[in-house]
Amino acid sequence: MSISAAYYRGDKQFTIEQVAPRPPGPNEVQIGVAYCGICGTDLHVYLGHMDQRVGFERVIGHEMSGVVSAVGDGVSNIAVGDRVVVRPLDHCGVCPACKRGHQHICQNLKFLGLDTDGAFQEQWTVPAHTVHKLPEGLPLDHAALIEPAAVACHDVRRGRVQPGEDVLVIGGGPIGMLIAMVAKQEGARVTVSEINPHRLAIAEKLGFTALNPKTTDAAKAITEATGGKGADVIFEVSGTQPGVDLMTAAAATRGRIVMVAIHATRPQVDLFQFFWREIEMLGARVYEPQDYDEAIRLVASGAIDAATMITDIRELERIGDAFAALSGNPEAMKTLIKCTAEAQS
Amino acid sequence: MSISAAYYRGDKQFTIEQVAPRPPGPNEVQIGVAYCGICGTDLHVYLGHMDQRVGFERVIGHEMSGVVSAVGDGVSNIAVGDRVVVRPLDHCGVCPACKRGHQHICQNLKFLGLDTDGAFQEQWTVPAHTVHKLPEGLPLDHAALIEPAAVACHDVRRGRVQPGEDVLVIGGGPIGMLIAMVAKQEGARVTVSEINPHRLAIAEKLGFTALNPKTTDAAKAITEATGGKGADVIFEVSGTQPGVDLMTAAAATRGRIVMVAIHATRPQVDLFQFFWREIEMLGARVYEPQDYDEAIRLVASGAIDAATMITDIRELERIGDAFAALSGNPEAMKTLIKCTAEAQS
Repeated sequence: MSISAAYYRGDKQFTIEQVAPRPPGPNEVQIGVAYCGICGTDLHVYLGHMDQRVGFERVIGHEMSGVVSAVGDGVSNIAVGDRVVVRPLDHCGVCPACKRGHQHICQNLKFLGLDTDGAFQEQWTVPAHTVHKLPEGLPLDHAALIEPAAVACHDVRRGRVQPGEDVLVIGGGPIGMLIAMVAKQEGARVTVSEINPHRLAIAEKLGFTALNPKTTDAAKAITEATGGKGADVIFEVSGTQPGVDLMTAAAATRGRIVMVAIHATRPQVDLFQFFWREIEMLGARVYEPQDYDEAIRLVASGAIDAATMITDIRELERIGDAFAALSGNPEAMKTLIKCTAEAQS
Repeated sequence: MSISAAYYRGDKQFTIEQVAPRPPGPNEVQIGVAYCGICGTDLHVYLGHMDQRVGFERVIGHEMSGVVSAVGDGVSNIAVGDRVVVRPLDHCGVCPACKRGHQHICQNLKFLGLDTDGAFQEQWTVPAHTVHKLPEGLPLDHAALIEPAAVACHDVRRGRVQPGEDVLVIGGGPIGMLIAMVAKQEGARVTVSEINPHRLAIAEKLGFTALNPKTTDAAKAITEATGGKGADVIFEVSGTQPGVDLMTAAAATRGRIVMVAIHATRPQVDLFQFFWREIEMLGARVYEPQDYDEAIRLVASGAIDAATMITDIRELERIGDAFAALSGNPEAMKTLIKCTAEAQS
């Protein structure tokens, strides 16, 4: 028996190979992958930005859902047939970060689907400790949003968002939009700042105040809308210098800024405002187990509008086309790859 | 009766004038000023950097100690003869920051000694709510350090410093050194990074590990000294780009950076490290009443080594010489002005 697996070969190329599935070893679980979303990080891999880390013999993909097909020795709480998602983090357990309880930002963290093979294949074998079971009735296509939704849950938790607070999300891509949904669910009034008109329209459709900082003085608009206070919590998801300028300009005294974006260069930051208004900034990366629990709850309940987020679904054989279409389309939100022919919702 | 008062006249000039003391109005207290330290902010005024805010008819100075000489109507808990210090903040009470309990960073804050007349005079009249009484036996020259010590207490409280934590103070001027003392008092292991050899020697004398980042890779040294962990809490007090580079490079995963320095320009900040290690940054400005209580306790107990900090004391008539000497001497720590001829410790 062989399975199809999509290998990243460098320079925007994938090849589909027929390979033997890796049987689960002790404390491992093998999963028939149903759907796997394309993450912004996967796009970076596709564009060649991470070749040194990923190499050219790598199956990527981690925003997945599936059904357990086999379990290894020592696995007691997961059974064949369970519908699951994977929290794709494998920590070392011995570094200072792990010892202090921050395994999700382990100093030797392996990210499944980047540092080891990922989910753009029919069968994926992972450590059992990474598996979360899904509740009955949660469609597997929607479940592929749980990984990015868990990022958003982690970000909102880091920001300590409270009911009635004013939240500003800078950048309305998939993660920004999921953060906005989770913050709204926490009872916040949410504004999304975004320059793409299509994404602005989605933000409005989802019930958020939408601002285009190219045509509106966003800091002034937030300050006025909050009676001179400013935003209580700001999520910087744009990764841009204008976004970094806005984050300090729009913050309330004692406001919290959550640094979600991956800034490849070092932007200029208005540190005077941090001092003057006692602003707080919190870096936020990936997720902890409770963020997965919350994301599963929010996707299952419909509080996260998965149907609006999923803008394309393609077969595994068409993965190259899917990446090409997504990388050239700033209007798209989330593309899923259907990894198993028989995958059902 | 007239008193001597030192007026800032612009361009590094003070004049000593004989003026009538302002009698205390309702809910005001008049204080015979004993000593008043020269703050970094006062040096900025002296050098002409704050002329627009301060003007040329202003008595500056706020790091003071003294004895109450008169009280206005409605003042019940302060009496003539009380030995006191002043928390020089007057808030509006109605702005969003005040309404949320952050009066010390009131959006319309008046700073006594900058926005109203200050303590470089023989008699100073202030709102009663700004006055803190001193315990018996606390010398009034040492008490002039309570204001900057309260800054340090506020900074350490913002950083949530815990016993056994590794603390890095970037910049060993008066505030940096006071932060180091307060953090040590909290049970932290403290390293001071400073480029001035004289200040490095003071840091070592006070019992801190001293690093010169011009001659040592400070981030590497901290990382190695902490078993690969990094500093748990970092105080950025340098206001420089190299200091800002060091603060992210030396931080542990989930480390806290307290932004104490006043950055006049916008430095480049390695926001990637905030994301990657979930670093937290907390702006910290002035103090709250409990920081004064703690500073009084630490100066009175000797946990803050006032004698080492006070490197010069001059008469009010010599205030111009005192500022000139301090601005040209990076080896000095704290200069006090003796404002009343009869002032005693």
